[in-house]
Amino acid sequence: MSMIYLDHASATPLSKKAKAAMEPFFADDFFNPSAPYLPAKRVREAYENAKSEIAHTIGAKANDLVMTSGATEATNLAFSVLNASTRGPDALYRPSTPARLSARGAAGPLNAPPLVLVLETEHASVLRTAENYGAGKIKVKPGSGLIDLDNLKSKITKDTVLISVAAANNELGTIQPLAEIAEIIKSERQARLKNKNPRPLYLHSDASAALGLLNINVARMKTDLLTLSSAKIYGPKGVGALYVAHGVKLKPLISGGGQERNLRSGTENVPGAIGFAAAMKETKDHLNSAAKTFENLKTIFKNSLTDELNGEIEPVFLGPKKRQLANFCPVSFPGLDAERLVYKLEEKEVYLSTGAACAASKGEKSHVLKAAGLTDKEIAGSLRISFGRLNDEAKVKTAANLIADAVKEELERLKNA
Amino acid sequence: MSMIYLDHASATPLSKKAKAAMEPFFADDFFNPSAPYLPAKRVREAYENAKSEIAHTIGAKANDLVMTSGATEATNLAFSVLNASTRGPDALYRPSTPARLSARGAAGPLNAPPLVLVLETEHASVLRTAENYGAGKIKVKPGSGLIDLDNLKSKITKDTVLISVAAANNELGTIQPLAEIAEIIKSERQARLKNKNPRPLYLHSDASAALGLLNINVARMKTDLLTLSSAKIYGPKGVGALYVAHGVKLKPLISGGGQERNLRSGTENVPGAIGFAAAMKETKDHLNSAAKTFENLKTIFKNSLTDELNGEIEPVFLGPKKRQLANFCPVSFPGLDAERLVYKLEEKEVYLSTGAACAASKGEKSHVLKAAGLTDKEIAGSLRISFGRLNDEAKVKTAANLIADAVKEELERLKNA
Repeated sequence: MSMIYLDHASATPLSKKAKAAMEPFFADDFFNPSAPYLPAKRVREAYENAKSEIAHTIGAKANDLVMTSGATEATNLAFSVLNASTRGPDALYRPSTPARLSARGAAGPLNAPPLVLVLETEHASVLRTAENYGAGKIKVKPGSGLIDLDNLKSKITKDTVLISVAAANNELGTIQPLAEIAEIIKSERQARLKNKNPRPLYLHSDASAALGLLNINVARMKTDLLTLSSAKIYGPKGVGALYVAHGVKLKPLISGGGQERNLRSGTENVPGAIGFAAAMKETKDHLNSAAKTFENLKTIFKNSLTDELNGEIEPVFLGPKKRQLANFCPVSFPGLDAERLVYKLEEKEVYLSTGAACAASKGEKSHVLKAAGLTDKEIAGSLRISFGRLNDEAKVKTAANLIADAVKEELERLKNA
Repeated sequence: MSMIYLDHASATPLSKKAKAAMEPFFADDFFNPSAPYLPAKRVREAYENAKSEIAHTIGAKANDLVMTSGATEATNLAFSVLNASTRGPDALYRPSTPARLSARGAAGPLNAPPLVLVLETEHASVLRTAENYGAGKIKVKPGSGLIDLDNLKSKITKDTVLISVAAANNELGTIQPLAEIAEIIKSERQARLKNKNPRPLYLHSDASAALGLLNINVARMKTDLLTLSSAKIYGPKGVGALYVAHGVKLKPLISGGGQERNLRSGTENVPGAIGFAAAMKETKDHLNSAAKTFENLKTIFKNSLTDELNGEIEPVFLGPKKRQLANFCPVSFPGLDAERLVYKLEEKEVYLSTGAACAASKGEKSHVLKAAGLTDKEIAGSLRISFGRLNDEAKVKTAANLIADAVKEELERLKNA
């Protein structure tokens, strides 16, 4: 392919290793892992091994994982902790009657609804789900998009049960200080213990964007709930997982045959789990080299682009200088219309986007860039560029040249308009 | 493979056609269908075409389908009609406060909770989900497992909102008279119109077991909600769909990017949908020949087995004589332990089960056979046999012989015990 693909944050091709791992499970070892005969038991074993491998890469065990159909389902399941932790197991579905309500009221300190806080720059899968629970928003710092820890502290109340902060942002690539957040949560837990406040407090993190570049480890990061996505790390689509720390109670979204320890029913997607595991292993094996490769590509790209533009316009590279995912290089050309650039570059087979695919397709302005304090002009002129395995030095240089050409053409057009 | 696989109701191998259709979408056309550039738009088009093809085979349109991660999710989503139709869109998640409750109480006739009725022989994905909503159970007729229509009529009340009956049962293969059920529903709707009862009444059907053998058509069957499964018709695992008739309101289980018309968020599983569509087309193209093939195999199997047993024990073929899926041939050997037969036959590479995989794996006795009035002895001695594309006349004859041998060995063992 001669195309230059700069949207790895949006989708990745299935890796050869992941594909090869899946292959036997399509038409040969196709058995239902719950069936009683030997070949089915072997499929069960392969499935459980895949879960172990995925879990192992994040410092967890197979039993800590609930396999899902992707990151969005995993995040929705994580948020069910708000139903499970403070109300009975049936509270989600059964309409409350006055009698049941007052019985709950008698519980005393848990009478108030459980609260949730999410970072204002989270992906739609977190934000929309959070809205269903009436979430409060934590502010980020202007420019970097890093969490404002003081703002977080000021918003935690005695009824806060869940805090959700992505390991890294999916537009700016901002890497959030999860360990520091976990420390704040630890203090609050200790305070609750003293005050005899029985509310639990959990940290959820969406690691979808971060998984390919950061060493994600639940023990080190001290997250209680972690969303994993296969599709963003060259694994099969339609597969994800939720890490659930021991003792955290969830309310299943999907009930039935009782698979995944009754937390997620439905016949197991065996090829999907096997492919996800292979992709995770491959990603983990190349984590250090990937970071170096992409830092290098990013430097080449930035320098080439700046040189080519030759001062006609100063590209504004977005996000934090440090603490940015190595493969993220969002950039803005204030005053230009980024959508026009996307279509111009499409003609040259350079593929990139203006933001998260699901939001951009609806013509929504990026809530992430807005929260990070960018001006309307900067937002309108911004491109999300994310490098990946389909890129090399030559492609990145060519991309910088073609983007510079498109930018200069647009500047020319505006001058003559 | 020399194995003889008689458990097609539990899992099917991915067909060559489905696999070939999926192939380009793994590593080449891997783009996010919501991304703005041309190759991504082509993926969007392929995805929507796949949905159209799936919809077309059941007499519906692409927009009537919500793609899911399988039949279980589809059924869970169908049941959300109980949250969406009679309460506000947020009723599922937001805890009721006394103020909101009394506001709802003011609605008058809709004060009582919406009710749901399910057939007592439904799959766990329906039964467990129904239990969350406190469902009533409709009885089946002894032996055949056909729905008792009088019992259904007697159980419908003014607050019934959903009736769920599988197109065909997944253990007995019993084909239910959906059109007759739809007629009963139609009468009830007319009565409600007269009585100014604003409650809607919907028919949901799980077509997972039936899809490969019956001509499923939503207009003819008059179902409002229909669960489809890819994995049971030689399509990829982890894919399903819910047909939703125009005007039926659901409450999404999974929120986020707003895919599937806001009813099911998450990046689309494009290869999955493409493979499912190819499998659906292939299934539909061979529907008539499949029915003939399997009726023939069933006759051969029954005759061979009866002959081989030579009167030492009379096999009890279960389910209705007519109105049974052509590929289902459940059989009982009263007095024997079916689990011992399964393990004996496993040694001969004959693979079959004692019931639904997810239930059998937990050692649960079949609730289906119990509801159909079988004695404990008949249930303990019953095998679920389901034919499929991995079978032919020779394999089925061999299977009958090997099963007869195993049965005779067991009879011998018991005689000497």
